[in-house]
Amino acid sequence: MKNKDIYFMRIALKEGQKGLGFTSPNPPVGAVIVKNGEIISKGYHRQAGTPHAEIHALREAGNKAKGATIYVTLEPCNHHGKTPPCTQAILKAGIKRVVIGVRDPNPKAQGGAEFLKNQGLEVITGVLAEECAELCRFFLKSVRKKLPWVLAKAAMSLDGRIATRRGDSKWITGERARSYGHKLRTLCDAILVGKNTVLKDDPLLTCRLRRGKNPVRIILDSKLSLPVERKIFQNKDAQTIVACTEDAPLDKEKKLKENSVTVWRLPEKNGQVDLKALLRKALEHYILSILVEGGAEVHGSFFEQKLVDEVAFFYGPYVIGGATAPCAVGGKGPAKLEEASKLPQLSLKKLGDSFLIKGYLTLPFSLTP
Amino acid sequence: MKNKDIYFMRIALKEGQKGLGFTSPNPPVGAVIVKNGEIISKGYHRQAGTPHAEIHALREAGNKAKGATIYVTLEPCNHHGKTPPCTQAILKAGIKRVVIGVRDPNPKAQGGAEFLKNQGLEVITGVLAEECAELCRFFLKSVRKKLPWVLAKAAMSLDGRIATRRGDSKWITGERARSYGHKLRTLCDAILVGKNTVLKDDPLLTCRLRRGKNPVRIILDSKLSLPVERKIFQNKDAQTIVACTEDAPLDKEKKLKENSVTVWRLPEKNGQVDLKALLRKALEHYILSILVEGGAEVHGSFFEQKLVDEVAFFYGPYVIGGATAPCAVGGKGPAKLEEASKLPQLSLKKLGDSFLIKGYLTLPFSLTP
Repeated sequence: MKNKDIYFMRIALKEGQKGLGFTSPNPPVGAVIVKNGEIISKGYHRQAGTPHAEIHALREAGNKAKGATIYVTLEPCNHHGKTPPCTQAILKAGIKRVVIGVRDPNPKAQGGAEFLKNQGLEVITGVLAEECAELCRFFLKSVRKKLPWVLAKAAMSLDGRIATRRGDSKWITGERARSYGHKLRTLCDAILVGKNTVLKDDPLLTCRLRRGKNPVRIILDSKLSLPVERKIFQNKDAQTIVACTEDAPLDKEKKLKENSVTVWRLPEKNGQVDLKALLRKALEHYILSILVEGGAEVHGSFFEQKLVDEVAFFYGPYVIGGATAPCAVGGKGPAKLEEASKLPQLSLKKLGDSFLIKGYLTLPFSLTP
Repeated sequence: MKNKDIYFMRIALKEGQKGLGFTSPNPPVGAVIVKNGEIISKGYHRQAGTPHAEIHALREAGNKAKGATIYVTLEPCNHHGKTPPCTQAILKAGIKRVVIGVRDPNPKAQGGAEFLKNQGLEVITGVLAEECAELCRFFLKSVRKKLPWVLAKAAMSLDGRIATRRGDSKWITGERARSYGHKLRTLCDAILVGKNTVLKDDPLLTCRLRRGKNPVRIILDSKLSLPVERKIFQNKDAQTIVACTEDAPLDKEKKLKENSVTVWRLPEKNGQVDLKALLRKALEHYILSILVEGGAEVHGSFFEQKLVDEVAFFYGPYVIGGATAPCAVGGKGPAKLEEASKLPQLSLKKLGDSFLIKGYLTLPFSLTP
């Protein structure tokens, strides 16, 4: 692997990141075209149904693309989807060398690298593969595992409490941490909470950032017990879905539907909505990533069933204490430490007076073909 | 403040740190002698009863000290204690300029700066005062508040659990984090745990580092209910003290004493040993710093009574969960967030696969005169 390839792939990665949160169900992808060591053009995928990153970069490059190298974080598609294949456009533009981050796991679109190689282009794959896989991890998971990516988020004190024994939690983490939390909402296709969170906090679950999109809101309420008057059912800033079991009352479903709330009736598991069935259903509706914001019981279930791929825990500058003060992850919990969820890689970020620990339970690169 | 003064004071700080954990009840202090921009000699205080940092540096400098500047992290003492006053030695050596980090709060020893100024030397104080106060924070607290410094330590999972619901905790944090934990034992004069920790873990509470001293072991056992067979009562690697209330059984005290264990009978508060009385008693025995290692109830009491000065929380790469899994800080806990302990400054440190968050509830500089 050449240093210059790593250098330009890093720029392609930065391009791709501009699309984060807006491309679903497509992956965010970045592309850079380079000739004689100089960047001629850049591009990124902005939204599903619109041109791919490569096309933006090729258009901007025009005739200069002849004999150039294109860097692209994900293997160029080789099929007619909503847009024509990028491989054809690369070929036509006279590109001589193609440097790819990760291979496309999608059986319908893959084969781009082979096609271009057969056409006589120099093709290199696996440059900054881990970072490129991370960029499109939601997409990789959905294609490879047929399930959306699950990101578990919580905000707690240094001693792991999400509120005092009386439920006071405003605000354990500082402003910068909370603003970062809203950024996570923008990244994900959906946000999920349990019914207790809706009861206690009456939240809107929208993204309060200037340039943020609102994720679809999913509420776990097995028996449809939540009152329709809750803000989340009245507010129309984002789609709201309630997941319940088959035997939930019909009249309640009717009331919710009158408020434009979608109801998903799903198989049950131990009296609760079967989370795996819910995830599959979400993917059918092109939800490739879900931000699980709790509360404790919901997080407990997701961790116990090993359905979490990524963790984002925020810690505020408090020690709260109190044997009955709630913690981020409840449920039954493992008996032995070896049964607990282990995070092989952790990263730390200071956010004002608070900080964030991020980690993967599923390493994005493990999802590449 | 001049840049060169900061530069050389930083070197004096590094010198002083070499004595950390070995100087009690004296503070760790570092000194550097500089002439024409060059370091002539360095020194640090090694142990109570032996020469102070300044004396080491002056001896090494010899005649070269004439006309030189001495940098010292703490104001030179002005009294005959176990050793003669450092101010006299500085004067005799012909030092022309004295740069001091923090003033000495000890009424018996202070006044060194004034004395030297009156003798015609140039005296500057407050250089890197915050760092110098941090170095000798145990000493500052004991002089200013008549209480030892309390450092609360805990090791937990990312979600704040110190064990699984079944009590499995070996090992939530990695080797580097645990080794750092032993470093804290070396730093402090005493280590304190509750009786449940002794019952469950049967620990030795010694320092397993190559160059580590063992702190005095203090066990909170209000009613002297712990069996004498526990390792901590049999092991003689460090002094062991049991703190109990006045009405604890006499025969048990006798048995403990037969094992060379010290028993402190103390006033009670809500049926437990009064922690403040315990801290005062510890200071009488020249214990200037106590590492409180838990468990949850002990930490809960210390935090609730606002007796903690510093926090060192280690986090291992696990999410454990489970509503009944124990957390680091138990007790009753505050009802409102504003009543919780807030840490104005936090620092992060990665330690292998784990990490450490340190923070002060008492800012060391707030304890300077």
